[in-house]
Amino acid sequence: MTVSPFDHPLLSALLGDEEANRHFSVEAEIEAMLAFERALAQAEAENGIITKDDAAAIVAALATFRPDTALLRAAVAKDGVIVPELVRQIRAAVSEPHGDKVHFGATSQDVLDTGLVFRLKSIVEHLGLLLTETIIRLVSLGERFGGRALTGMTRMQPAIPIKVADRVRTWRAPLQRHQERLSEQSRRLLVVQFGGAAGTLEKLGDKGPAVRAALAAKLGLGDAPHWQNQRDALADFAGLMSLLSGSLGKFGQDIALMAQGGTEIELSGGGGSSAMPHKQNPVKAEALVALARFNATQLAGMHHALVHEQERSGAAWTLEWLLLPQMVIATAASLRLAAELAAQVESLGH
Amino acid sequence: MTVSPFDHPLLSALLGDEEANRHFSVEAEIEAMLAFERALAQAEAENGIITKDDAAAIVAALATFRPDTALLRAAVAKDGVIVPELVRQIRAAVSEPHGDKVHFGATSQDVLDTGLVFRLKSIVEHLGLLLTETIIRLVSLGERFGGRALTGMTRMQPAIPIKVADRVRTWRAPLQRHQERLSEQSRRLLVVQFGGAAGTLEKLGDKGPAVRAALAAKLGLGDAPHWQNQRDALADFAGLMSLLSGSLGKFGQDIALMAQGGTEIELSGGGGSSAMPHKQNPVKAEALVALARFNATQLAGMHHALVHEQERSGAAWTLEWLLLPQMVIATAASLRLAAELAAQVESLGH
Amino acid sequence: MTVSPFDHPLLSALLGDEEANRHFSVEAEIEAMLAFERALAQAEAENGIITKDDAAAIVAALATFRPDTALLRAAVAKDGVIVPELVRQIRAAVSEPHGDKVHFGATSQDVLDTGLVFRLKSIVEHLGLLLTETIIRLVSLGERFGGRALTGMTRMQPAIPIKVADRVRTWRAPLQRHQERLSEQSRRLLVVQFGGAAGTLEKLGDKGPAVRAALAAKLGLGDAPHWQNQRDALADFAGLMSLLSGSLGKFGQDIALMAQGGTEIELSGGGGSSAMPHKQNPVKAEALVALARFNATQLAGMHHALVHEQERSGAAWTLEWLLLPQMVIATAASLRLAAELAAQVESLGH
Amino acid sequence: MTVSPFDHPLLSALLGDEEANRHFSVEAEIEAMLAFERALAQAEAENGIITKDDAAAIVAALATFRPDTALLRAAVAKDGVIVPELVRQIRAAVSEPHGDKVHFGATSQDVLDTGLVFRLKSIVEHLGLLLTETIIRLVSLGERFGGRALTGMTRMQPAIPIKVADRVRTWRAPLQRHQERLSEQSRRLLVVQFGGAAGTLEKLGDKGPAVRAALAAKLGLGDAPHWQNQRDALADFAGLMSLLSGSLGKFGQDIALMAQGGTEIELSGGGGSSAMPHKQNPVKAEALVALARFNATQLAGMHHALVHEQERSGAAWTLEWLLLPQMVIATAASLRLAAELAAQVESLGH
Repeated sequence: MTVSPFDHPLLSALLGDEEANRHFSVEAEIEAMLAFERALAQAEAENGIITKDDAAAIVAALATFRPDTALLRAAVAKDGVIVPELVRQIRAAVSEPHGDKVHFGATSQDVLDTGLVFRLKSIVEHLGLLLTETIIRLVSLGERFGGRALTGMTRMQPAIPIKVADRVRTWRAPLQRHQERLSEQSRRLLVVQFGGAAGTLEKLGDKGPAVRAALAAKLGLGDAPHWQNQRDALADFAGLMSLLSGSLGKFGQDIALMAQGGTEIELSGGGGSSAMPHKQNPVKAEALVALARFNATQLAGMHHALVHEQERSGAAWTLEWLLLPQMVIATAASLRLAAELAAQVESLGH
Repeated sequence: MTVSPFDHPLLSALLGDEEANRHFSVEAEIEAMLAFERALAQAEAENGIITKDDAAAIVAALATFRPDTALLRAAVAKDGVIVPELVRQIRAAVSEPHGDKVHFGATSQDVLDTGLVFRLKSIVEHLGLLLTETIIRLVSLGERFGGRALTGMTRMQPAIPIKVADRVRTWRAPLQRHQERLSEQSRRLLVVQFGGAAGTLEKLGDKGPAVRAALAAKLGLGDAPHWQNQRDALADFAGLMSLLSGSLGKFGQDIALMAQGGTEIELSGGGGSSAMPHKQNPVKAEALVALARFNATQLAGMHHALVHEQERSGAAWTLEWLLLPQMVIATAASLRLAAELAAQVESLGH
Repeated sequence: MTVSPFDHPLLSALLGDEEANRHFSVEAEIEAMLAFERALAQAEAENGIITKDDAAAIVAALATFRPDTALLRAAVAKDGVIVPELVRQIRAAVSEPHGDKVHFGATSQDVLDTGLVFRLKSIVEHLGLLLTETIIRLVSLGERFGGRALTGMTRMQPAIPIKVADRVRTWRAPLQRHQERLSEQSRRLLVVQFGGAAGTLEKLGDKGPAVRAALAAKLGLGDAPHWQNQRDALADFAGLMSLLSGSLGKFGQDIALMAQGGTEIELSGGGGSSAMPHKQNPVKAEALVALARFNATQLAGMHHALVHEQERSGAAWTLEWLLLPQMVIATAASLRLAAELAAQVESLGH
Repeated sequence: MTVSPFDHPLLSALLGDEEANRHFSVEAEIEAMLAFERALAQAEAENGIITKDDAAAIVAALATFRPDTALLRAAVAKDGVIVPELVRQIRAAVSEPHGDKVHFGATSQDVLDTGLVFRLKSIVEHLGLLLTETIIRLVSLGERFGGRALTGMTRMQPAIPIKVADRVRTWRAPLQRHQERLSEQSRRLLVVQFGGAAGTLEKLGDKGPAVRAALAAKLGLGDAPHWQNQRDALADFAGLMSLLSGSLGKFGQDIALMAQGGTEIELSGGGGSSAMPHKQNPVKAEALVALARFNATQLAGMHHALVHEQERSGAAWTLEWLLLPQMVIATAASLRLAAELAAQVESLGH
């Protein structure tokens, strides 16, 4: 099924990013959830919430656990999330009497939000690498053509001559600021979510904080109080996804405008037309603009999701699932396309 | 790959709609494109643009044509659309010397936009049926509980008593207006797109209009001048998708608020919690609110796509593909969920 | 105070529309509210809800009524709307014992929503005239230059030659469809809002419908059941505002792109630069794009406002006030700018 | 004229913020522009670009300069910005032969963007104070009622008991993170904009950077290369405005939901109804939700404005003016309303 181009077997070749997509596969999702349950069992055993035998049984079961996805699918229609049914299946797989120590004191949101952040950690690394590569490509453009002249354009009219280096700098500099932002944000973003039913870890008595810290450490995430109804770190991250694709959209728009003029740029690898054999369309440049406007559009929804009522809002939370993964793919694809487009510049300026 | 819940093997059980999804599968997409090429060949033969033998050869080849999707995928990354490569493959499948009469005088956008509208025709029927069913369910609610009292609530405060029938009418009446809108819009929406390279059907001389009319008739679509850079009918349709899901979101929000109060509604089939066995969560009601806010968010992007420059904008056009199919699924799912939710109301009012 | 360019003493010269602005002045707002109270008193006297003497006293007081705006302002901070305080002031101005027959059976939303629709009726006329004028200007462009050649541009690349008439048609045709939409929508939009505290007109017994019909007739609006929590007609109207500005944004973008190329268009009246005396900036063309993207952005919020809970939502309703008036001005300004821009085209094509 | 509630003589009492509004008045705008021209003249004299006599004449003229706003208004309709005409008027006011040294090497965008940032500096201070006050109010709520019990609510259903302190913390903690963000962002946001016609300060030879640094220092802003076509700092700031109002919207929604239930909160100062004398509407709480959704909506437009083509885009730049000031006011108003609402809580929990 291919409602979204990011999942489309064909369109994802242009608009997707294979590695980023993998982090949002059902397999990666469930794997992250199992990692949570494993780490939780271990953290709870270390803190005397459950016994070492409990933890051993749980870890053993998780090592070979294969979910019954048909049952998971049926459960989602009723529960809205797969976790209650997944936990039931895991419990059934754990040798008795240890089953009911699975997911002890946790709730669905702990598993899902932590699972998301666990995958975002890898995604942030991936984006960081793509960002570095794209910056390198732009630096290279500046080195190859920087000294040449370019017609500075303001308000869609020729203004005064500038250097290619001046234009290239305005493509590169925002990306370097985004690297700083990514770094600043990671501290607040890549933290565990662990609060139990309503955020108070009521089942863990005074050991809640210690278990949470151990859980975070085992997952390689930062420790923090629950944020189940405080969605600002995710909304801020979505904003960064859009700042990135927006800056790259400006790059794409500039390339397309230069390609339209025809005298100040030569590109290789343009797209063909079914009607006009001579055509060389700046497809990647246009895709960058489309992805920029896509993310700008989605971002509003992630901010509406800040109005997350009470201890948990099914409505606001579900809205995030409809938006954030796609924003991440759009940004990864934008970085990839921008690097490819920069590499296709045969000549710039005059 | 499952970036979007609408394509997600598990989440689509709650947020998707199987029939609507099918219309957006790659199979349905390509089938619609082949239908275009078949109808075009026939329309052009009828008007003497190509010979009857040409048309026969093309139709014969299309009947057994299976695309090489790996090549299609590779082509998309370069061309931005699959059509040039698809046409090349079809041409190769047609017995010589008829191959170069495939897609004669047409362009990628003719195939893709007409293919979309061709599928929207079925989708509009499907939505119409879902809409009728949901209205019937709401009428039934009114019949079962209409005479009972309900606490009218204004500005989140008890106001004065009203009847259940008063509240139910405010859920039902907008849906009936949406039926009118769907009917009004269909006339402008379900029309063929046929303009050739830049909208002038320059390869068909003075026979352009006649071929277009025949093409439209064969596809069961209305005839109209090209609209390749006039995206208002699609943006208007996207608006209707959001009006629908928005009205259903109000229904969902009302149910959730009544369920929170606890005294004026009884629902069956609520969602469970992994942490609190007693919980009966109004999952469908919350999903309706999430889908409403999802569509409200997407709609902005479809309107940005109205700024479709010149004869064809790759950027604005690509943006539509990222948005419209998801809006349609969200609306179909909303209708389904609303009908199910209405059927789960065991008691309303007092 | 000038937070919005539409209210800005200087910027509104470019981005505003004086006539449309007038309809959103406090004076026009209050005038519409007084017209509601007058018509209500008359309608209620005709139906025996209040006496003819009551109505006469109310009408007499309203004829010379001047609100104390300082008290209105203070009340808004507490009540969220000016109506309770306005009604209190009107009552005080009516000769006893008729005062408490003012606003009988009505509520704030009846006054505010009907007052809005009352002004939208004039606005719709105004927009209709602007639309006609802009279409005429575009038709004129087609008459003056239609036969000339123009470089058809697809995907930001030269495609094949077309006629200026082909391009002009794609600017004009959507506007004609918007005329149809405006007409279709008016029937559903320009209707009275009258429901009382919670929509049931409980204070009017079985005379509610008759009073409402008389009220509507006196205000020159259609009669309809209350729509206080069914905001689809307003959201649909907001959508039309954006379809309009979006189509005009495409026109502006096309002009700006042609002006950038420099060979296919000559414009008079371009904007100057403080740095480059030679510059002739296509300011109106760019403003059209900005206004298009502004309205596309706002529209999402009007659709979020469809999730209007229960009998009245302060949150969803207030959101509309923050958005809709600005969308109307943006559209009126777009029509004005497009007509002016079309008139500034000295030459088109070659 | 009052198209926007933020400028509305009445509605701004609820939805506006007087101090923030003042920073967006025409007077404040022009004052900031004159401050730019004064500082520029001084910076240029210090660096030998113009003579000390030139600078003295300019500073003297600016001290008593009163713009002819009618001429400014007429110019905006043509130039799109007031600066060319403003500079012309200032030059006319400067004693000869010094007039043409006004605005030497600068362009409209330098004046307008620096003028905006100059005012944002005061606004950031104001918001910081409002933020501190609101946090204090929430801390106070926690101190007064923190130990009491509250019904934890998840997915619109009672879950388990929590403490009032748990809920209050989730209102307060995001605001503290926003304080950090405001601090992190200020470094990148509050910098001078100075690039000349196309960003290269071509008229200042190799003294451009020195003049820019001096200009920044005199205005109390950071020095940075031009950012005329790199709008990420402003888009990021807009994001923070929405993160703030979004977190406060969650607070408002929670209060409104508790007020609807009626047993866990007592508020003073609720809004009255014109139809139901007994009503105490949680007007401020609802306004917070409306402002949150308003800003979430606007943010998308600020991100679309990142696609700022070439050296200067009139379309993308103008879009920012239509959005950012309103977002700032919405946030200032939200902080004010939240502080007032917190102070109106008479009792919380049980």
